[in-house]
Amino acid sequence: MGLLTKPIKTLDDLFVHTLQDVYYAEQKITKALPKMIDKVSDPQLKQAFQSHLTETKNHVRRLEQVFQMHGEQAKAVTCPAIDGIVDEAEEIMGDASDHDVLDAAALSSAQAVEHYEITRYGTLVAWAKQLGRNDCASVLQQTLEEEKKADLKLTEIAEARVNRVAV
Amino acid sequence: MGLLTKPIKTLDDLFVHTLQDVYYAEQKITKALPKMIDKVSDPQLKQAFQSHLTETKNHVRRLEQVFQMHGEQAKAVTCPAIDGIVDEAEEIMGDASDHDVLDAAALSSAQAVEHYEITRYGTLVAWAKQLGRNDCASVLQQTLEEEKKADLKLTEIAEARVNRVAV
Repeated sequence: MGLLTKPIKTLDDLFVHTLQDVYYAEQKITKALPKMIDKVSDPQLKQAFQSHLTETKNHVRRLEQVFQMHGEQAKAVTCPAIDGIVDEAEEIMGDASDHDVLDAAALSSAQAVEHYEITRYGTLVAWAKQLGRNDCASVLQQTLEEEKKADLKLTEIAEARVNRVAV
Repeated sequence: MGLLTKPIKTLDDLFVHTLQDVYYAEQKITKALPKMIDKVSDPQLKQAFQSHLTETKNHVRRLEQVFQMHGEQAKAVTCPAIDGIVDEAEEIMGDASDHDVLDAAALSSAQAVEHYEITRYGTLVAWAKQLGRNDCASVLQQTLEEEKKADLKLTEIAEARVNRVAV
């Protein structure tokens, strides 16, 4: 979640702050994914990243829609958690010379990103409902479902890798 | 995942590095949870944090067991992602004057922590299997199941809060 730009006094403040945090995270991911697509070798992984990049651009637009529905200007606040996850991903991937190790590092990093988003969107959906904004909850829920599917796809790829080695 | 202390060349390097990262994260959580227990008001949430603190201390011991099984010294490496999540939690909770808002912030932050752990333990289990270390995978799997249950419990509490407001 992003560093505070204004005091959090109400659930509405928390909701807007978390929207700004996720807005930052999604934008960060649209910049990180193309580099990961270039670096990985596994065609399935490359394709999963490619489809998720398309989805992520759509998530940014959906967040802008929710800001607008909620009468707020779309704004991003720096989020140290996602910065940490992405910096680490780049560091580890930059260091691995073996293709297979690099793919494993990329897969793991992408799952960390997905889980961060799943938890934040899950929270946003709950808070939107608490605030009586089922319209916002419904838009956010669409993204939450896509993030969960993306994570599941990555788990399938990870399991296929384990089985390939085990054979 | 922790900042690199040595180059990652093999899957074994990745595995050990991630063990060190999670070892840091679990220790950080044992320090953060008592402060969260003190601050929250919801008795269910307080109790969920209390049981998870007991579990977390056990997760630290299990990681030490895995280090030993793998012939490595137990060592922690700084992890900017978990630092970011915990710093943010403390910042938001410190600012909220309303008990209900503070509880909502604490619940959301705890779920972000759980999801970080779920993704890292999921990865560790997969890598342990890939390395032919089913013995390590089995120990790590126990913790993974507990983290998933802890997150589910928090989701139940969050949903109960939504329903209470919606009534």
